[in-house]
Amino acid sequence: MLGMMMNTPLQISAILRHAEAYHGATEIVSRTVEGPMHRYTYADMTKRAKKVANALQRFGLERGDRVATLAWNGYRHLELYYAISGSGYVCHTINPRLFSEQISFIIRHASDKVLFSDLTFLPILEMIADTLKGLKAVVIMTDDAHMPKSAVLPNLLCFETLIAQEPDEYQWPVFDENTASGLCYTSGTTGEPKGALYSHRSTVLHALALSLPDVLALSVREVMAPVVPMFHVNAWGIPYAALVTGTKLVLPGPKLDGASLYQLFAEEGVTVTAGVPTVWLALLDWMDANQKEFGCLRRVFIGGATPAPDMMSRLHAKGISPHQGWGMTETSPIGLATAFLPKHKALPFEQRIALEVKQGRPVFGMEFRIEGADGRPIARDGKSFGSMLVRGPWVVAGYFNSEKTAAHEVEGWFNTGDVVTMDEDSFVQIVDRTKDVVKSGGEWISSIELENIAQAHPAVKEAAVVARPDERWGERPVLVVQLKPGATFSRADLTELYNGKVSKWSIPDDIVVLDELPHTATGKLLKREIREIVLDRLVGRLTADDVVHEFP
Amino acid sequence: MLGMMMNTPLQISAILRHAEAYHGATEIVSRTVEGPMHRYTYADMTKRAKKVANALQRFGLERGDRVATLAWNGYRHLELYYAISGSGYVCHTINPRLFSEQISFIIRHASDKVLFSDLTFLPILEMIADTLKGLKAVVIMTDDAHMPKSAVLPNLLCFETLIAQEPDEYQWPVFDENTASGLCYTSGTTGEPKGALYSHRSTVLHALALSLPDVLALSVREVMAPVVPMFHVNAWGIPYAALVTGTKLVLPGPKLDGASLYQLFAEEGVTVTAGVPTVWLALLDWMDANQKEFGCLRRVFIGGATPAPDMMSRLHAKGISPHQGWGMTETSPIGLATAFLPKHKALPFEQRIALEVKQGRPVFGMEFRIEGADGRPIARDGKSFGSMLVRGPWVVAGYFNSEKTAAHEVEGWFNTGDVVTMDEDSFVQIVDRTKDVVKSGGEWISSIELENIAQAHPAVKEAAVVARPDERWGERPVLVVQLKPGATFSRADLTELYNGKVSKWSIPDDIVVLDELPHTATGKLLKREIREIVLDRLVGRLTADDVVHEFP
Repeated sequence: MLGMMMNTPLQISAILRHAEAYHGATEIVSRTVEGPMHRYTYADMTKRAKKVANALQRFGLERGDRVATLAWNGYRHLELYYAISGSGYVCHTINPRLFSEQISFIIRHASDKVLFSDLTFLPILEMIADTLKGLKAVVIMTDDAHMPKSAVLPNLLCFETLIAQEPDEYQWPVFDENTASGLCYTSGTTGEPKGALYSHRSTVLHALALSLPDVLALSVREVMAPVVPMFHVNAWGIPYAALVTGTKLVLPGPKLDGASLYQLFAEEGVTVTAGVPTVWLALLDWMDANQKEFGCLRRVFIGGATPAPDMMSRLHAKGISPHQGWGMTETSPIGLATAFLPKHKALPFEQRIALEVKQGRPVFGMEFRIEGADGRPIARDGKSFGSMLVRGPWVVAGYFNSEKTAAHEVEGWFNTGDVVTMDEDSFVQIVDRTKDVVKSGGEWISSIELENIAQAHPAVKEAAVVARPDERWGERPVLVVQLKPGATFSRADLTELYNGKVSKWSIPDDIVVLDELPHTATGKLLKREIREIVLDRLVGRLTADDVVHEFP
Repeated sequence: MLGMMMNTPLQISAILRHAEAYHGATEIVSRTVEGPMHRYTYADMTKRAKKVANALQRFGLERGDRVATLAWNGYRHLELYYAISGSGYVCHTINPRLFSEQISFIIRHASDKVLFSDLTFLPILEMIADTLKGLKAVVIMTDDAHMPKSAVLPNLLCFETLIAQEPDEYQWPVFDENTASGLCYTSGTTGEPKGALYSHRSTVLHALALSLPDVLALSVREVMAPVVPMFHVNAWGIPYAALVTGTKLVLPGPKLDGASLYQLFAEEGVTVTAGVPTVWLALLDWMDANQKEFGCLRRVFIGGATPAPDMMSRLHAKGISPHQGWGMTETSPIGLATAFLPKHKALPFEQRIALEVKQGRPVFGMEFRIEGADGRPIARDGKSFGSMLVRGPWVVAGYFNSEKTAAHEVEGWFNTGDVVTMDEDSFVQIVDRTKDVVKSGGEWISSIELENIAQAHPAVKEAAVVARPDERWGERPVLVVQLKPGATFSRADLTELYNGKVSKWSIPDDIVVLDELPHTATGKLLKREIREIVLDRLVGRLTADDVVHEFP
């Protein structure tokens, strides 16, 4: 028997209608690509989104067509978010930091029909001009006065000219809440980028969960500046959650350096912000160098990478409460968020920091299944670890236009690829990637834990731990180090380094010293390459009975 | 094109799973009907809910069958909420304050199969014994030691005996999120009670919206005591929202007097509570009389009736922030909630109170349509008023087992029957009921506004304003008063009373003095009866040109 409640679909246009009707005077402030600040209200934004929706109709698009954006966090980008999805098209946000070949690939893969781009990215557009010829239109998100001339792309349209004559009335269509609303490709460190295809339902539910007091805690009294880009998993969903809750939005545009963010936050009274650790380090450094404090900023949400304890302490010292969150492109993204229990109030500062560098506690709507090496749920002791699988209404069930299904190792669950612990209070901590963990004799050894210990040794400049095949144990850990100039590292050092810190069977059997460890362009260790070097050097001369080696 | 997200249904069992997995140590504290306090955790509750689910299965129920409860706010009632709905049955909460004939009517109307009742309500059960004979079982929510003997009802079962041998493992079934989950009848002041049939989807979405920072703001750091009964619109949804957010629950059982609530709140560190104004008045009176203050309680949610400004001031004086909300059985219930904007921070105290006695601002998910006498949207000036219609995923689309459709005067909208204003900041204030408003010459006159003014006159003991038919204007207002002993009230008093306070055309044309105004059993004015008396007295001797009369 079904309930007798209204069958009101969860649509992104309902978020816009709510903001228009009940938070019309709330401000949206943007630092523009062109330079000056731009300032208007939710009511103004809604009117312009309707103009954009009318303009989109003229391109002869069909429901479900992809419309791409290549843009910073700004008001025109926000208008596009709502106009594209609200009209029943799919808002495909492209990450301009990808290589131009990748951008070209995903535009073709997504079969984008129209592309909207910030002025900043004209050089990218010119590089991928061949790809753009297949589109109905390329629109530059600026006004007539700022329109660039491009010999390579003579047919560029101007955003403001495009919408100028359009009416500011538009009836948002009503459709199935499972309709696709947005498309975001993973950065694809391994293999081709894969597209997560969000729905109206997943987006609205995610926005509700994201706004809860133990997650972003958004309300009419907050001023939120999402520094995380709108081309990166929809700026973690903040452009939706802000309109759900009537929160003032401050959009920083292209300037994400410490000085620019400080000025913007201080001038606009930003109370809460969100972004990756490097952004906050730069902001803290600038504030220290210029002896500045905030009167307004109270909370910083941190995701994308694990923040160092020291950064957390520095934020506290400035009266700013750090909150970590965890998520992925495939999870919309929010899955975990820092939320202290009443019993944590009395925690000594260092223990508080130790909890804050964990990724957080499960957000309602997301379910977690953490399986150890034996395939069974791990103990919740904050030490045992296992693969993290998730499920929920804002987790992908597959990838757009792809034979690849999402990594579902267990029916109905998405495998995050992370190896984690969970403590008795449900705080989850990532200890490794599944592909990097060392599987030794039915036990898992965290490469990251061993690396962190080695990294602290005075002789070590940089350390990596990778697995090598082993006949008896399956895999054994190998420590790979670059030493500081003139430093030495002996067998005795190895034992001393790990004794008492990790279980005996976790201690690496081998050490390989390299002149330099290989990295990706963005500075991450290239573990796959390190593993190959180790195999070249070690395998062939190792047996299960002969696991202790001289150092090369 | 559909999105590619997991098709995870919004089920009440998912709330329970979340609470079990990630908030297992959170406490639920109940004052029992038997007397002592009861204290356990979400993990304990979940285990017992599974035992109850197993016990329910043995009754041979079918999916969708109604299982009734007649109970206070307590842990066994909470177990039933989750066990009944989680298993796919419908939890029918019965209001024990109804007349026994009404209770009998709704048990038959709902075709309840099993009834669970608190000890307290044995006298009611005995009065409706004939009705109960049609049920598979009547279970008393107590243990063997407290089981009553009833000559009229010899087959009563004991809750604890029933579940004692059941396993505490149970696999919650997966089904369509639109499946019916709960049934609650309106109190039915006019005509027969009507049943709102909630769904899993409506309940989960409502719980999310209810938990938002600008509504109840529930989190792991709060301690919530719902004083609003679990037999009244699911205690406003708090039993669901608390488990969504991991909030400690304090359930007050049958003792709702000032002394009992004070003791309970102080002992359990309650930080936030919810209930009707009369409860808070009693609590404030007791605190004043006993010179008590709270160290913990910070927020009180008020609904069900409009609180007086004086009560708001008294709460503030105790350091407690009052928050009003508005809703109906038909709206799950939350629709409006007090949420101050940044600009309200600097408001003088009296203006703040004036906003706090309004019903609040629209909660995300609920849409409001307020139509004036001309059928067009009213001006948002806080003065113009019109009928309030609502829609959203937690609004009824009809009534259970009834030919009556919900009052949808406009397609897809539910007519609340309230006449309201909305100000420029979206604060809504109820000024009258649609059936009581006086429709005069295309304008609407609020009977409540006129009554409040008359009520302040020193000669008036009680005042009512009702409409009488009028040839020229359609309707005109009539003031009906009971005077204080020995007091008089002249024509000059009438003019003086209203001049400058309301528009000229709003001033009542007639006054009728009665020895006493008729009331309902619960003390509300019987406006329908008053209108009939007025018609008897006035109609027949009035014409449009002769609207001023001597007082009888």
